[in-house]
Amino acid sequence: MSRSPGRKQENHKISRELFVLTYGALVAQLCKDYEKDEDVNACLDRMGYSIGIRLIDDFLARSAVRKCRSYSETADMIAQVAFKMYLGVTPSVSCSSATGNEFSLILDKNPLVDFVEELPAERASLCYCNLLCGVIRGALEMVHLAAEVTFLQDRLKGDAVTEIGITFLRKPEDRKHRRN
Amino acid sequence: MSRSPGRKQENHKISRELFVLTYGALVAQLCKDYEKDEDVNACLDRMGYSIGIRLIDDFLARSAVRKCRSYSETADMIAQVAFKMYLGVTPSVSCSSATGNEFSLILDKNPLVDFVEELPAERASLCYCNLLCGVIRGALEMVHLAAEVTFLQDRLKGDAVTEIGITFLRKPEDRKHRRN
Repeated sequence: MSRSPGRKQENHKISRELFVLTYGALVAQLCKDYEKDEDVNACLDRMGYSIGIRLIDDFLARSAVRKCRSYSETADMIAQVAFKMYLGVTPSVSCSSATGNEFSLILDKNPLVDFVEELPAERASLCYCNLLCGVIRGALEMVHLAAEVTFLQDRLKGDAVTEIGITFLRKPEDRKHRRN
Repeated sequence: MSRSPGRKQENHKISRELFVLTYGALVAQLCKDYEKDEDVNACLDRMGYSIGIRLIDDFLARSAVRKCRSYSETADMIAQVAFKMYLGVTPSVSCSSATGNEFSLILDKNPLVDFVEELPAERASLCYCNLLCGVIRGALEMVHLAAEVTFLQDRLKGDAVTEIGITFLRKPEDRKHRRN
């Protein structure tokens, strides 16, 4: 006997729960592999970077967004289009510097930690979701925007919200200009 | 400045691409950690098992399905409800034994390998998606169904389709009965 129901293979959505638990397995494995939290964080960031530089093509193709004209537009795009598309949530965005190149993505609820209650005491410096920082950094680099991306607050560490900081690094020609 | 768009935090869907790439990072890490493919496969299966025993609650709550009355119904449920819900695809189901306890889930297209072209030559025995087998095994165990779950065919290894075999193990009382 064989039953072959009608299929929609081109469904791009999957359940978040499976992702969240698989991500948890990845972090747990890295915690086995590396004693120091800093090494786990760095590894997650590197993995995220590799993902980001591949994911950007998918993002540009599926979102069909236009080129951003400012850092502010780029930050909004990450929050309102990319986070929405890939994680099903929309962080709020705030600009945290007078120079206009530092932004925060603020998540009231972090979809990646659904099954995580709190970090174990011996893993107090772990940036559990550091993969996300790497993804953002990698994706931005592929559209020629260098950025530093780090967790500034984390509900898993007792903060009121989860906050990802993005600092766009000035373009090389800007820096050169300033030095002259 | 702060922009806080309307939010739907209870969206259970995320983009498959992020999951697929994250899963790829997990497998790559395990390939670094373990020299032998068998050890990577066993680790993926164990990880999947831990995920399955947690995911079953989510599945029962969200699917609101009734108790299955036969192995055949259970296999259909896994293919048509669980795979659909968690991976966005619906494998076809075939019963491969006269005894009615062996089933195959057949995937024309495996959503987990979107970005994988082929296995490297030195990883010929890797069951890349072995996590799925563990998930199914763990989830079944939580509803008191012991099963062996393994890949029987894999497109990554040149087979025409990807086939996951599920063998439901007779209940202990059945076995005892047969021995008498």
